[in-house]
Amino acid sequence: MILEKCIGAQRCRRIQRALRHGKVTILCLVLTVVVLRGTIGAGKFGTPEQDFIEIRDHFYSRKRAEPHRVLEEVQTTSSDDDPNNYNAFDINTILKDEGEEEKPDPSKPYTLGPKISNWDEQRSKWLKKNPNFPNFVGPSKPRVLLVTGSSPKPCENPVGDHYLLKSIKNKIDYCRLHGIEVFYNMALLDAEMAGFWAKLPLIRKLLLSHPEVEFLWWMDSDAMFTDMAFELPWERYKDSNFVMHGWNEMVYDDKNWIGLNTGSFLLRNCQWSLDMLDAWAPMGPKGKVRDEAGKILTSALKNRPVFEADDQSAMVYILATQREKWGDKVYLENAYYLHGYWGILVDRYEEMIENYHPGLGDHRWPLVTHFVGCKPCGKFGDYPVERCLKQMDRAFNFGDNQVLQIYGFTHKSLASRRVKRVRNETSKPLKVKDELGLLHPAFKAVKVSSS
Amino acid sequence: MILEKCIGAQRCRRIQRALRHGKVTILCLVLTVVVLRGTIGAGKFGTPEQDFIEIRDHFYSRKRAEPHRVLEEVQTTSSDDDPNNYNAFDINTILKDEGEEEKPDPSKPYTLGPKISNWDEQRSKWLKKNPNFPNFVGPSKPRVLLVTGSSPKPCENPVGDHYLLKSIKNKIDYCRLHGIEVFYNMALLDAEMAGFWAKLPLIRKLLLSHPEVEFLWWMDSDAMFTDMAFELPWERYKDSNFVMHGWNEMVYDDKNWIGLNTGSFLLRNCQWSLDMLDAWAPMGPKGKVRDEAGKILTSALKNRPVFEADDQSAMVYILATQREKWGDKVYLENAYYLHGYWGILVDRYEEMIENYHPGLGDHRWPLVTHFVGCKPCGKFGDYPVERCLKQMDRAFNFGDNQVLQIYGFTHKSLASRRVKRVRNETSKPLKVKDELGLLHPAFKAVKVSSS
Repeated sequence: MILEKCIGAQRCRRIQRALRHGKVTILCLVLTVVVLRGTIGAGKFGTPEQDFIEIRDHFYSRKRAEPHRVLEEVQTTSSDDDPNNYNAFDINTILKDEGEEEKPDPSKPYTLGPKISNWDEQRSKWLKKNPNFPNFVGPSKPRVLLVTGSSPKPCENPVGDHYLLKSIKNKIDYCRLHGIEVFYNMALLDAEMAGFWAKLPLIRKLLLSHPEVEFLWWMDSDAMFTDMAFELPWERYKDSNFVMHGWNEMVYDDKNWIGLNTGSFLLRNCQWSLDMLDAWAPMGPKGKVRDEAGKILTSALKNRPVFEADDQSAMVYILATQREKWGDKVYLENAYYLHGYWGILVDRYEEMIENYHPGLGDHRWPLVTHFVGCKPCGKFGDYPVERCLKQMDRAFNFGDNQVLQIYGFTHKSLASRRVKRVRNETSKPLKVKDELGLLHPAFKAVKVSSS
Repeated sequence: MILEKCIGAQRCRRIQRALRHGKVTILCLVLTVVVLRGTIGAGKFGTPEQDFIEIRDHFYSRKRAEPHRVLEEVQTTSSDDDPNNYNAFDINTILKDEGEEEKPDPSKPYTLGPKISNWDEQRSKWLKKNPNFPNFVGPSKPRVLLVTGSSPKPCENPVGDHYLLKSIKNKIDYCRLHGIEVFYNMALLDAEMAGFWAKLPLIRKLLLSHPEVEFLWWMDSDAMFTDMAFELPWERYKDSNFVMHGWNEMVYDDKNWIGLNTGSFLLRNCQWSLDMLDAWAPMGPKGKVRDEAGKILTSALKNRPVFEADDQSAMVYILATQREKWGDKVYLENAYYLHGYWGILVDRYEEMIENYHPGLGDHRWPLVTHFVGCKPCGKFGDYPVERCLKQMDRAFNFGDNQVLQIYGFTHKSLASRRVKRVRNETSKPLKVKDELGLLHPAFKAVKVSSS
């Protein structure tokens, strides 16, 4: 099947090269994606072709990245005093040093923490007692905490840390412009939940510690804001507790493992969410549990490859098998890119600049460009690292231009780190209006005028 | 003089090694610092010994770092599409591409922008018109914007980006806890003012764009918050426009070039500050102007080595020569570490933990630990890079422990990236008070309850 896809003179030449590097699978994947992407028109979103791309994409990004991480984590560490020791997450060492508290007890099932059943009551009591920390900072504008993070270790691929830096700068900008607070995590709170499950204990901890936060917004470190002007349609979610990018049909009917994406989602701070986290977590514990769960997910979900359980598949599985229990509080958003797959967006930025403007959030000007499968911090991404880095620079600059225009500057091109002036300085700076009205937008003003 | 300092069996052995690496000066500097530091007691702050250390420190950090950066900046760049092209700041290219607007005209003196004389009037008008963006967010709590940044290029020393990432995570934490907004700059707004002068055009631009900001807090990327509980004594600065760490005697009497530090300072958003920036900038333009100004500064200031003009020396010079014009609005703070030299702090963290607690901000628990001379992002620091990185990790973890304790965790040691639980989970999370009361502190609450 793979070889079939690789027929074609020019492609075969590339295969021969690839064979020398022993990267047939990856190359064919890339070719498949490239070829298919050619056939997709701008804005043709959620089409079978694109699903197909995303299947490939998720397939390789999840499948090969994880065993690699596991491998790295079971290495034994030298002294942590050695700044070149990057094996801080050695689970064996953690368990040894931490003693019982962290050692998993096979007899009882994994839990994220003591059962809490009256969170809504506890929280509303607290909110009444603390009027200075309202959970709504404006009419229908909830207080939001954006949560992201990365490993406390330097990247295996050294340039990766530079892209993590650009990625957090990008998030700081969007969040400052929209009155959102940022939490950047660098700690592994639960050794059992390492990998893409680490966000669960972190999210629960933050919900319980921050009753003033109404919505927690999780965003992967490889996702960047590319529409600095788009404010989330909070009103639309007033009756929902969990907002992800996805499609009802793909999740509930097709049980397609990429019917939704867990790289960027909103979770309301309430009892329902704690229950959801409890329902979500059991497939996460590293080792036998996660491996066995992976088999269940693969057999139950459409197009899911064989590999250990991942948080995204688990969520599709929960929703598809228990829709009546969770469905009415889950909002699968696809009217704009709460998560947007980079493969179908980054080559269209110039076209977007030509035809559209920030503030739309959808295929015309995506809110988020998510570099699924790029793994700039790891050694084994699914795409040629040069392509990923070049495109991440373009995405960063595309978003950064919207911040720079506030101050009268822009990048010389989407490929350039250099900036140039687009407005002359004036002695009446307050008379200058930035085109996007990002400097003092209403949606930010309410933040301060509240309560 | 240098050789004198190097006498001593063990030291000489180290010199022979160093000679092979051609690092005599640096080594002797380090030995000098080490030897002297031994003689300094805890909290003996602002003593001649320490000044001496700082002189050496600043000497080497400034002197050798700058020519290196200049060198790098005049390299010619390959295409910016090449993700391995790190010469984005090639001035020649910028000037060529930008055309006249950026090319310096030797006939007229450099200015930061069109002269503005009525900023206080313009700004107060704006504030009246925009009650939703008050410049004070609580009784005597000004709205503050913390400004920091780094080059848009990956670090020459690849691990440097990881420390920039940790440094911004550290700042995000302090600013979230204290209701301060963050601006992370990655753009060179004015090619003429590259290097440590780049902050001037940036600061002016931000003051003029953000009339709602009362105080702009500049912090170097190599400075980290090590006291997450210390709130600045805003009341103390109600009649001041410019707050730096320093000593009146060292600046006004001794004209000592390290009588103050410009790595962490507060600047009020007002006409006085624009005038100060205009008075500060003329020594900045790269090339002949900066070189000639360097000679003036060296001859006028105590202990200043021979090298091009730097922003810190220029500020000491301005204050020392025009005290009557500026002095009454400048507050040289030394009651706490608005800037704290790492050399006299990082080895005392354990002692501080033993005897004191966060919230003091001074030698007992420093607000800021500033890694002057470490240059983790550059190739040529003044200290062995391993020592710098190890100590930056300790400073990060020291500060991070105060954030982690909020959630019931701590680093296993100041040298360890790993964290461990310090509290058991509970089903009544809101009954748990974090020791430092950082979770919902009054100084943050007022932020929301204002106006």
